[in-house]
Amino acid sequence: MEFTHTHTSVQPPKHSKKTLCDLDYAQDPPRILSNYLVHAPKPFNAEPHLPLLVNSGTITPADVFFKRNHGPIPDIRLEDHQVYIGVQTDQLSEKVDWKVLSMQDLMTRWPKATITASLQCAGNRREGLAQLKEVKGVIWKSGTISNAVWSGPRLCDILKDVVGIPEDLHHEMIRNFHVALEADDSVVEDTCYGSSIPLRKAMDPLGDVILAYEMNGKPLSRDHGFPIRVIVPGYIGARSVKFLQKILIQPQESSSFFQRKDYKILPPWVNSSNVDAAWDSTISLGEMNVQCVICTPMEKEIIPSSRPITVKGYAISGGGRAIYRVELSADGGKTWEPVDKIEQTPDKTSGMYWAWALWEKKLPKIMTTSELVARAYDSSGNIQPEFPIWNYRGVMNNAWFRVSNVTQMPQSHM
Amino acid sequence: MEFTHTHTSVQPPKHSKKTLCDLDYAQDPPRILSNYLVHAPKPFNAEPHLPLLVNSGTITPADVFFKRNHGPIPDIRLEDHQVYIGVQTDQLSEKVDWKVLSMQDLMTRWPKATITASLQCAGNRREGLAQLKEVKGVIWKSGTISNAVWSGPRLCDILKDVVGIPEDLHHEMIRNFHVALEADDSVVEDTCYGSSIPLRKAMDPLGDVILAYEMNGKPLSRDHGFPIRVIVPGYIGARSVKFLQKILIQPQESSSFFQRKDYKILPPWVNSSNVDAAWDSTISLGEMNVQCVICTPMEKEIIPSSRPITVKGYAISGGGRAIYRVELSADGGKTWEPVDKIEQTPDKTSGMYWAWALWEKKLPKIMTTSELVARAYDSSGNIQPEFPIWNYRGVMNNAWFRVSNVTQMPQSHM
Repeated sequence: MEFTHTHTSVQPPKHSKKTLCDLDYAQDPPRILSNYLVHAPKPFNAEPHLPLLVNSGTITPADVFFKRNHGPIPDIRLEDHQVYIGVQTDQLSEKVDWKVLSMQDLMTRWPKATITASLQCAGNRREGLAQLKEVKGVIWKSGTISNAVWSGPRLCDILKDVVGIPEDLHHEMIRNFHVALEADDSVVEDTCYGSSIPLRKAMDPLGDVILAYEMNGKPLSRDHGFPIRVIVPGYIGARSVKFLQKILIQPQESSSFFQRKDYKILPPWVNSSNVDAAWDSTISLGEMNVQCVICTPMEKEIIPSSRPITVKGYAISGGGRAIYRVELSADGGKTWEPVDKIEQTPDKTSGMYWAWALWEKKLPKIMTTSELVARAYDSSGNIQPEFPIWNYRGVMNNAWFRVSNVTQMPQSHM
Repeated sequence: MEFTHTHTSVQPPKHSKKTLCDLDYAQDPPRILSNYLVHAPKPFNAEPHLPLLVNSGTITPADVFFKRNHGPIPDIRLEDHQVYIGVQTDQLSEKVDWKVLSMQDLMTRWPKATITASLQCAGNRREGLAQLKEVKGVIWKSGTISNAVWSGPRLCDILKDVVGIPEDLHHEMIRNFHVALEADDSVVEDTCYGSSIPLRKAMDPLGDVILAYEMNGKPLSRDHGFPIRVIVPGYIGARSVKFLQKILIQPQESSSFFQRKDYKILPPWVNSSNVDAAWDSTISLGEMNVQCVICTPMEKEIIPSSRPITVKGYAISGGGRAIYRVELSADGGKTWEPVDKIEQTPDKTSGMYWAWALWEKKLPKIMTTSELVARAYDSSGNIQPEFPIWNYRGVMNNAWFRVSNVTQMPQSHM
C-alpha cells in the first residue's frame, strides 16, 4: 500500500503553548442553544436537557449530542487536513519515522467500519460530588452522555498497514505500549488536546476503535471533531480525541495534561492544596464504570394526575459490558422493582455493548413524598454505590440516581 | 502439525446421568483438613481459614487453596487421558469432526505459558446473602478465593492449530461462538461438569486462557484438576473446568446445568418457587466484579493491647482490571483511610491483573465498639455497594466487608 504523502523527513506541525488571550472563539460554529444547558460559552461546554436527550431515541442527533470542548473549534479544511502516524520504540529516543495520511487516504484506503457507541464524559454527574465538597471542573449534571453511529476506518487496520509492528515485538508492544493521540486545536492547559489509549485497546479487533469521519451518516460536524476524530468505545469520552492530527505509538502514556493531570479518580484526601503531588501516583481512567440516570420526570416536575407517569432513563457500563438489569424504587431505595423495558443492542460487528441502554417504567401514580431512585447492574455483576464518593476532579460519580419532589396534581390546579 | 491420535471417526466418551448412589467418594485424595473450614465432605467443599489464606502469601499453596467440587475426584491416569477438540459450526447439526490429543501432545507440542491467576468461586461470601434470605448453594464464607501460578499451553494456540478457524469466519465466530468445556467426572446435576466461555475470551492472545497441567510448579493435584484443567483468568472459578476432557467450539453457550441453571445473578423476585422460569432470561456470569475482604483480624477476635493491630486482606476485580485503591474504616464506614500497602502484580506476558491484591494496614488500637470495614476500587472506577443485594443463588456478593467485635485487652486478661 502506498500513501499519497510519505517521505522520511516529514514532521507533524508543533503546536505552541497558548494563553487565554490567544484563543479566538469568533469562528465557533452556530448551535441550537435551546437544546442545551450551557455551562460555558468559551470553550463551549453544554449538555442536552435530559427529557430531550432520552426522547430523541437511541441515536442522539448531532444537535442534541453533548458538546465538550477545551478551546475554540478549529476551522479545518478537509482537503488540507493530514494525520501523522509514527512509532517511538524507545522511551529515550525522540526519533520517529513519521508517515502522513490525507483525508482521502483515510476515507478510501481501508474498509469503512460503522460502530454505534455512546460517549460519556468522565465528569458526567459531577454536580453530585460538587454538592459534597469543592471539585475542579465544569459542574455537569447528568446529560454529558450521548449515543451515535460513527463511521470510519479501524485504527487497528491502519496501524497494521502503516506502522507494520514486527510479529516478534507484537506481544510485548501490545502489553506495554500506548497510542498517543493529539488534536489539531489550541487549549490553555497544553499545546493541544491530547490523550492516549493502551495499544492493546487500539489493536483489539473487537475493541472497535475507529477514526470516524461520519456521525449518524453525515460528515462530522465541527463541534464533534470535523474532519476526523477517534472513537474509543467503552472508554471515557476524553480518550475519543477530536480534530485528530497525530497518532504516536510509544512506550508510555501520553504526556498530555489531559492524560497525566486530569481524568483521574484522585483519592479522597487529595484536594486543591495537595493535588500536584498526587497526579503521578493515580492511574489514568480508561473504561467507564456502570451508570444509570433517570431523565424524566425531573426534580420538582409537576405531572397531571390524570395519566400514569412514564419514568425514562439511560444506563451504560464500560468495556463492552452489557446492562444486565435496571431497577427503580419509588420510595427512596427501600423497595425496588424491575423496569418494564430495557433496550440495548450489541455492536453488529464485535458483539460488544458499546451503546447505552434506554429503559422505561410506567408508574400508576407517584406519592408526593416519594423519591425515585434508579440503579443498574452490568454483566460482570458490578453495582452502583448508594452514595457518591467524593474525589477532587469530580469524575466517575455513579451513585444511585435520585429524583425527588415530583408531584402529581389535577390538570385544573396546574 | 500431526497428532498422535487423529482419525475422523473418533468420538469422545459419553458420560451417563448419575444418581447420588452412583457416586463413590472412596477414592477421593487425602487433604489437610485442619487448614480448612469444611462445608461438605461429599462432594468435598472446603475453604481455607482466612488468616491462613492471607498469611500464606501471594501464592496460595495447593494444600491451602480452596477446594470446590460437584462430585467425586476422578482417578485419572496421565498416560490414558485424552482431550477431545471439535467444532460444531451449525446449531442444528450435531456432526462434529473430533480431534484428540494425548497428555503428551498437550505437554510438548505448544509453548508452556505460565500465568499467575486467582480463582474465586462466584459463591464466595454467599453467607452474607444467606443472612438476608434463603439461598441455594454451599454457604461459603469469604475464603473461596486463592491465587496460584498455572502452567500449560495457551488455548488460543491449540485452537488455531487443531481447529484452524478459517480467516473469513474468524471475526463472526469470535463474536458469536462459545467454547464448551467438559470434565471427565461424574456429578448428580448433569452427565458431567461442564461450562463455557466466549470464543472471544479463548482466542484473545491477552486473555491468557490456558490448559494447565501444573500448579505452583508441580503437576496439578487431583483436587485441583489432575491431569489438566482450564484456567480462565478474570472469570468466576466455575468456568475454569477441572479434569478437562472435551472442548467444543459451538454457536451457543454450553447446555450444561452449570452454565444454564446455576451461576447467574437471578433477579431479587426470583426464589425457590419460581426459579425454573427464570434461568433462560438471566445471563451467565463471566467476569468477576470488584471484591475486597478483611482476612485478619476476624470477627470476635481478641488481640493483646500491647501491640498494634495489622489488618490484612485481599482485593480483586474481574477482566484483568487492577485494584486501584483499598480503604479501611475503623468506625463502621463513617470515615475511611487508605491502607498502608497494596501488592498486586500484573501478569508478566499480558500485563493484565489476573492475580489478587494483598493489602495491609497497621492500626494503633481498636475501640471495642468499632466495626472494621474494607472496600476496594478497580481501575475502571467500579466500587462495591455498601449493602449486599440478595439473589437466590447467592452469587457475586461484593458488599463492603465488615468485621465487628474485635477487642484488645491486656495479655494478663486473655
